[in-house]
Amino acid sequence: MREIVILGIGQTPVDEHWDKSLRELAGEAVIAALIDAKRESSDGLFVGNMMSGMLSKQENLGALIADWVGLRGIEAVKVEAACGSGAAALRMGLMAVSSGEMDSAIIVGVEKMTESLPAETTAALATAADADYESTQGLSFVAINALVMRRYMHEYGWKHTDFAPFSINAHANAVHNPYARLREAITEDDYRQARMVADPINLLDASPTGDGAAAVLIVPADTIQSNDLPIITIAGSASATDSLAVHDRHDPLWLSAAEISAHKAYKQAGIGPNDIDLFELHDAFSIMSALSLEACGFAERGQGPRLGLDGDIIPTGRIPLTTLGGLKARGHPVGATGIYQVVEIVQQLRGEAGPTQVDGAKIGMAQNIAGSGAVIITHILKAHK
Amino acid sequence: MREIVILGIGQTPVDEHWDKSLRELAGEAVIAALIDAKRESSDGLFVGNMMSGMLSKQENLGALIADWVGLRGIEAVKVEAACGSGAAALRMGLMAVSSGEMDSAIIVGVEKMTESLPAETTAALATAADADYESTQGLSFVAINALVMRRYMHEYGWKHTDFAPFSINAHANAVHNPYARLREAITEDDYRQARMVADPINLLDASPTGDGAAAVLIVPADTIQSNDLPIITIAGSASATDSLAVHDRHDPLWLSAAEISAHKAYKQAGIGPNDIDLFELHDAFSIMSALSLEACGFAERGQGPRLGLDGDIIPTGRIPLTTLGGLKARGHPVGATGIYQVVEIVQQLRGEAGPTQVDGAKIGMAQNIAGSGAVIITHILKAHK
Repeated sequence: MREIVILGIGQTPVDEHWDKSLRELAGEAVIAALIDAKRESSDGLFVGNMMSGMLSKQENLGALIADWVGLRGIEAVKVEAACGSGAAALRMGLMAVSSGEMDSAIIVGVEKMTESLPAETTAALATAADADYESTQGLSFVAINALVMRRYMHEYGWKHTDFAPFSINAHANAVHNPYARLREAITEDDYRQARMVADPINLLDASPTGDGAAAVLIVPADTIQSNDLPIITIAGSASATDSLAVHDRHDPLWLSAAEISAHKAYKQAGIGPNDIDLFELHDAFSIMSALSLEACGFAERGQGPRLGLDGDIIPTGRIPLTTLGGLKARGHPVGATGIYQVVEIVQQLRGEAGPTQVDGAKIGMAQNIAGSGAVIITHILKAHK
Repeated sequence: MREIVILGIGQTPVDEHWDKSLRELAGEAVIAALIDAKRESSDGLFVGNMMSGMLSKQENLGALIADWVGLRGIEAVKVEAACGSGAAALRMGLMAVSSGEMDSAIIVGVEKMTESLPAETTAALATAADADYESTQGLSFVAINALVMRRYMHEYGWKHTDFAPFSINAHANAVHNPYARLREAITEDDYRQARMVADPINLLDASPTGDGAAAVLIVPADTIQSNDLPIITIAGSASATDSLAVHDRHDPLWLSAAEISAHKAYKQAGIGPNDIDLFELHDAFSIMSALSLEACGFAERGQGPRLGLDGDIIPTGRIPLTTLGGLKARGHPVGATGIYQVVEIVQQLRGEAGPTQVDGAKIGMAQNIAGSGAVIITHILKAHK
């Protein structure tokens, strides 16, 4: 594949944007990415979004957003893989540019979740699970994750509070990120006392919904000037699937699609987990952090929470996680999340991440998860200075 | 780009499949394409679908279908561009294989529309239009097309019956297609007397909804044996956008995105409209047939209906259209339609189209439209015998 560079990034704060429509949110991020890249247009637009049809009565987002940002005429399409829609759209943009079919692409993730009734949003989120065999049983999406977490605690002997460091770290990092939804630090006491959502997942295990958009502009490395420094390349990119329903898995406590996609990405980048300077993982629920760390080779099976308890995951730790707040505190506008993760890694690799800057960060990994592990997409970004 | 071959095709009848779920329909088409291609697997799966979230409470179709057909683990994603989702998914599969990222891809279009209440389906279809500026005015999708048709008749002086040949030809051709939804011939009298839907569009101007799935398996030309004859290549493939809302267009009677994408595809294939042996156009409404013919260079501006009246569009005519029934009579399961068109062209180029076989067909064009022209995707297929 042609080597691909992320030339521009853009994002809106994750918030309740009652004054902004879907197209306005997406437009804000796209325009910011164009300005950041010092470009005026792009050959293609790939929109990562999950729920616009269900919540905003709007599909056909490719045409909608391309026209809104002044790029009427270009190729534009929406890509959907539930909560992994953002990274799935990035994969499509990447392959479009790699194929030579276009010389630049904007990938924007956008989701507008807060103007709908909570019951509508919950129902829309449940479409990420297996409608015929999971949702029909009355399982909401958080309930499915709660069953996984309960089983994990039983199987490996962890207490609920052992997961606290994931949330405490995410909130501590979000304090300094102006784009984050929950800019407030939490303590272990807060975590312990948080209101229950679906036992054992409480409010501080779960990421908040939100409205938001994030965008990147990519071009082939061979088309840019060498003085556009630092150059951030996509050194690894892979996507894999698992069964949609958790009960169909060979092991419901193992993210097989994370293992496959991460190891493909490592191989492409010619590195291993020890070379990763920071990891923006998909902490939609704290249990998912533990499972991702294990499947990607950062912890032994069943030992994910250990990294939090040992202080490895903070910005100065061995493998910093969710350095700008993660899904837990930056917020999780589902179709946008995968692009927020990539935007944040670019901020880190450029050395522009503020107080939670990871010192000397050269290689970052982003992992976006659809459903409870049904589609998992891994990207590895590398800085060349 | 690498030269891409369509190695296998599969389809289900378009019908009211109350006994089959979304995954079963898609699976049937995918398995048929694998068998046709004499393959057992594929590196990637691209699903064209518009309404599964709204009508079947199911997103994340990539993972759902990949697992169902026994390909758990492979990369899989859903691609959405309203009624153009099928061809949009084909574009993504094409770029994925062209980029070298994968050596084969299955593209399946699937839609399940008939188990929902008509009002739900109508609301879901309206998400193809501009929710903020069209649908909020109470305009259904057929109403928008009716306004366009009324304006066209006023502007160019056509009578309603001048559009009859498009529907009569489509129905006549569908009679012989076992996969078609409406296998019954119609007369001009039937057309004239059909029940009004949204003036001037009556029931025989409008394509029927339906449940269905169609699939193709593509591989790079350089990976197949030369004795796999006839070889069908994708000689041209392009997609373009226009404004989502019709009132935002420079000319609401001109499909600018059809013009752009068709001319790009002609250029890639090194041909012009006169070289096309058959054209599977997007006759969701008869007015769209006229507009497509004009934008793609088969008729002068405002003269689209002339081709029907002159007998040019029947299988033995100058430019055969909708040779296996088109959207009008094969049926229009929206996200699947773009793949049905391509499957039918492959049948024609293989010489396996039955009584409506276009004699000596070597080059076929498929055009899939999203919204009222907001995204238009053109593919040109070529037989090498």
